Amino acid sequence: MYLETVNSPKDIKKLKIQELEKLAGEMRTALMHRLSNKGGHFGPNFGIVEATIALHYVFDSPKDKIVFDVSHQTYCHKMLTGRKNGYLYKEHFENISGYSNPEESEHDFFNIGHTSTSVSLAGGLAKARDLKGEKENIIAVIGDGSLSGGEALEGIDFAAELDSNFIIIVNDNDMSIAENHGGLYRNLKALRESNGLAECNLFKAMGLDYVYVKEGNNIEKLIEAFKQVKDIDHPFVVHINTRKGKGYELAEANREEFHWHMPFDVETGRATVNFDGENYEDLTCDFLMKKMKADPKVVAIVAAVPGVIGFTKEKRKEAGKQFVDVGIAEEHAVAFASGIAKNGGKPVFATHSSFMQRTYDQISQDLCVNNNPATLLVNTASVYGMNDITHLGIYDIPMMSNIPNLVYLAPTNCEEYFAMLNWSIEQTKYPVAVRIPCNGVIHTEKKVDTDYSNLNKYQIKEKGSQIAIIALGDFFQLGEQLAKEIKSKMSVTPTLINPRYITGLDEELLESLKAEHQMVITLEDGILDGGFGEKIARFYGPTHMKVLNYGLKKEFLDRYNVEDVLQKNRLTPGHILDDVERYRI
Amino acid sequence: MYLETVNSPKDIKKLKIQELEKLAGEMRTALMHRLSNKGGHFGPNFGIVEATIALHYVFDSPKDKIVFDVSHQTYCHKMLTGRKNGYLYKEHFENISGYSNPEESEHDFFNIGHTSTSVSLAGGLAKARDLKGEKENIIAVIGDGSLSGGEALEGIDFAAELDSNFIIIVNDNDMSIAENHGGLYRNLKALRESNGLAECNLFKAMGLDYVYVKEGNNIEKLIEAFKQVKDIDHPFVVHINTRKGKGYELAEANREEFHWHMPFDVETGRATVNFDGENYEDLTCDFLMKKMKADPKVVAIVAAVPGVIGFTKEKRKEAGKQFVDVGIAEEHAVAFASGIAKNGGKPVFATHSSFMQRTYDQISQDLCVNNNPATLLVNTASVYGMNDITHLGIYDIPMMSNIPNLVYLAPTNCEEYFAMLNWSIEQTKYPVAVRIPCNGVIHTEKKVDTDYSNLNKYQIKEKGSQIAIIALGDFFQLGEQLAKEIKSKMSVTPTLINPRYITGLDEELLESLKAEHQMVITLEDGILDGGFGEKIARFYGPTHMKVLNYGLKKEFLDRYNVEDVLQKNRLTPGHILDDVERYRI
Repeated sequence: MYLETVNSPKDIKKLKIQELEKLAGEMRTALMHRLSNKGGHFGPNFGIVEATIALHYVFDSPKDKIVFDVSHQTYCHKMLTGRKNGYLYKEHFENISGYSNPEESEHDFFNIGHTSTSVSLAGGLAKARDLKGEKENIIAVIGDGSLSGGEALEGIDFAAELDSNFIIIVNDNDMSIAENHGGLYRNLKALRESNGLAECNLFKAMGLDYVYVKEGNNIEKLIEAFKQVKDIDHPFVVHINTRKGKGYELAEANREEFHWHMPFDVETGRATVNFDGENYEDLTCDFLMKKMKADPKVVAIVAAVPGVIGFTKEKRKEAGKQFVDVGIAEEHAVAFASGIAKNGGKPVFATHSSFMQRTYDQISQDLCVNNNPATLLVNTASVYGMNDITHLGIYDIPMMSNIPNLVYLAPTNCEEYFAMLNWSIEQTKYPVAVRIPCNGVIHTEKKVDTDYSNLNKYQIKEKGSQIAIIALGDFFQLGEQLAKEIKSKMSVTPTLINPRYITGLDEELLESLKAEHQMVITLEDGILDGGFGEKIARFYGPTHMKVLNYGLKKEFLDRYNVEDVLQKNRLTPGHILDDVERYRI
Repeated sequence: MYLETVNSPKDIKKLKIQELEKLAGEMRTALMHRLSNKGGHFGPNFGIVEATIALHYVFDSPKDKIVFDVSHQTYCHKMLTGRKNGYLYKEHFENISGYSNPEESEHDFFNIGHTSTSVSLAGGLAKARDLKGEKENIIAVIGDGSLSGGEALEGIDFAAELDSNFIIIVNDNDMSIAENHGGLYRNLKALRESNGLAECNLFKAMGLDYVYVKEGNNIEKLIEAFKQVKDIDHPFVVHINTRKGKGYELAEANREEFHWHMPFDVETGRATVNFDGENYEDLTCDFLMKKMKADPKVVAIVAAVPGVIGFTKEKRKEAGKQFVDVGIAEEHAVAFASGIAKNGGKPVFATHSSFMQRTYDQISQDLCVNNNPATLLVNTASVYGMNDITHLGIYDIPMMSNIPNLVYLAPTNCEEYFAMLNWSIEQTKYPVAVRIPCNGVIHTEKKVDTDYSNLNKYQIKEKGSQIAIIALGDFFQLGEQLAKEIKSKMSVTPTLINPRYITGLDEELLESLKAEHQMVITLEDGILDGGFGEKIARFYGPTHMKVLNYGLKKEFLDRYNVEDVLQKNRLTPGHILDDVERYRI
């Protein structure tokens, strides 16, 4: 087995083409071993095996520096740079992350998880090299799907100004997570169909030199192409045509499904883990489909992650013109939604909390300055969300809730979520964001409000005295547990409040608490800094009311265990009760 | 005079070409009247006179909807849509803003001030039109300078997916605020030089239909071109070549200087208002030039606003490869800076507070997740900064200071600012942002610290008791005044603290204040929500310490008077003293 002998890229440089091809086969076997057992990004890695071998064969990493966009396609790169055991052996699966990671290896230069960043980051490496008078090759590897992102387009446009070595490998498998969207993909198609010879060429139009490699899964052809650009003295695009999921028939046939896959049976391709119960993705899709059928002005918008609101291929087809995937283009998505709302449409843009970060300025300027009634749905916005350092969902409260005019709502159960979403779609006064619950689909039999236009009215769920608990969104259930604990341990019935609105204070209610309460506890599912609880602390700052804020520490977590993080942040009824007793004195 | 008779676009539709040309002359006279007396965007408006006339001649605004990018070129549009008096008569100058504004007119659809948004916003208008089954024309007008922005490129790429009427006017005057940067400008040049016939065409490469108008200041030619695309059934780019500053020789010759100009003498072109004293733009430039000469690894980066750090044409030339203008591309700028820092360079990226908003995700992911030692300089970050609703500098504290790993510093005078900047450039551990003071160049004769690596150590400037004032950055001088006032009116010597670090608490110092203080007052030059003071309130929440936070209300202000805003927010020693007396009980 060749792979077993590869401890660094040097070890593949001695191999012959046929041996490299055997190595490719072994790498696919190793990928399959990890992916079928643990899950992960399937299609991107199966498609880039040969290109990764050729890159490491031709270039001299880590002196030559390779930056992978999104870096979910770095499994093969990791195998060839001393981390093969993370694919070969179950007991080493946890040693490596799913993205490039400088802490793992000197061959990785950045922690990357968001799309469209590689060209700019690598451009910076190249600029520093030039300032220092050094000479290594700098290579950015970017997929076709990432090209529609503004950061990538800015970076590619600027690359032409670097008048020194800079190589951009465009790994074109004609696919984003779902299908691609945007006019540039017609140009990529024309380039593929003309063997790179079409006169109209996006990359040349951005000032870059260009070559096309038709057989992007042919090691020999790739090596030949890469050798031609090695040590080149100006920016150069190598456009390679690869096959997503190559080598596993089911993945080649179902490219969207096999972009990322949970553990599966290799024979059938079926998931071996079942998530049977209700989930907010499907529920949201059903809800929006109903709204769309009742009103042609309702339109759902996603940016390359239709799954966040359950829009499968079939549902997208069914929704027709009322569903829009803008591709990886979150900035466009929010400005587009603002324009739709301005002209009388009812847009709902949904994405992950972490990807909303892409569009702070558009939320502020295009949407909120203009006060247009678009709806933003923020998914996986929680400590219970994704747990890779690049995909955390615990920063959206400080990011979004301090933007003027935005109404940011935090539902505490399924019925309240859909009531809020329904209100948001139908109202015409405010830009509204809703934090989709992330702590399981919790139902209530009690009636929920249908109208949220009386802004910042908190809801008292249980009236008590001495201690008030203001429990926001996903942490409302923690608030309920805490209330119970306080009742049983302290013989005090605390007041329990569902604040519902992240973006404002119910000053009347807060004022009224002063009469019979000496302590207010806030709970929020996100970092404390810049968040919700601090606003309560500010309100009571000049008074005798004691305020205890609970939430997460401002830090970047990585691949964490939720229970550990909650413990460390004292986010359990037991810890909070201890604090209450300590501070009541 | 024709202009006097124009109350709506209808009034120009009856005019003959020659009359329209006379109108154009009158409009330039009116522009000159306002601009020489009041200042404003000169070049963009003088260049677009004819195109604006032709647009309103051919299309039927407001049914047909025109969205202007940045909207600093809407002066002519305003003249033709009922707002001519704002240009003809001094007493009406204040009636209109410098940007498009729906509150002024039904012909304006958005408040716009940031670049690169028009295509996406207009795309949304078009989408809503289609959902409603209506038929009007939707037109986005975007300058060549704005094309390098990620949001614009995302929008143009996606425009091809709108299979209905959508017209993009590319107003190409071969100039951004300063010269353009990026490879796409070579393509625009090739298109201009080939009369639009070059096979390689950025717009076609993004899937759009295209036509070129060589004489972009010829009303007749423009009318002809616009008539051809009116009611077109698919997205279409009309690329017009205009002359920035056309009609005023000095502006045509000095396009950067006359992009925006303060009041000036028409004869000589010289400013009639003098800002002679020291300013941070020039001081920062001098400082960076010195650093660059001492170390080839230092590199200053701007995104199309070299003026924010005083880099005039001459200084840019002098700095050579150590100065980079990435064009309008803030996302790229931050990722690029992170890459430079990673590879051993010493990058300093500077822009306005309002434009930093463009790059939240890049600060978070590309820079802070990777903890690379790049420096961000945040300019006009203050209530004393720009006062248009789209350019406010009062939101960067909540936006940036809650991102983990970032060290955000608030200097309180000139010497401290340069000491912090110098430390930031030379250290290699943290991503650092520095808020450039904005309340005048204030000097100190006292020694300032040169090393800020002991993070979050606040500085006690005067030790007192009972009341502590924590006065951040630009509001430190207000803190000094307040301390004086408290001393003289209350016979109490308060403790005065310069916190220096926006991003963290000096818990040891805060803890120590408990012994001899009953009240802490925080002052910050920005909105309170999500800001610095709330963190202090949270710290003292469980204790008996009273906390009073002072800063600005979370809202969008527009063309405000600083003194009024300070009064309204109780940001004067008198107001605060009243509160102190009230809450001490």
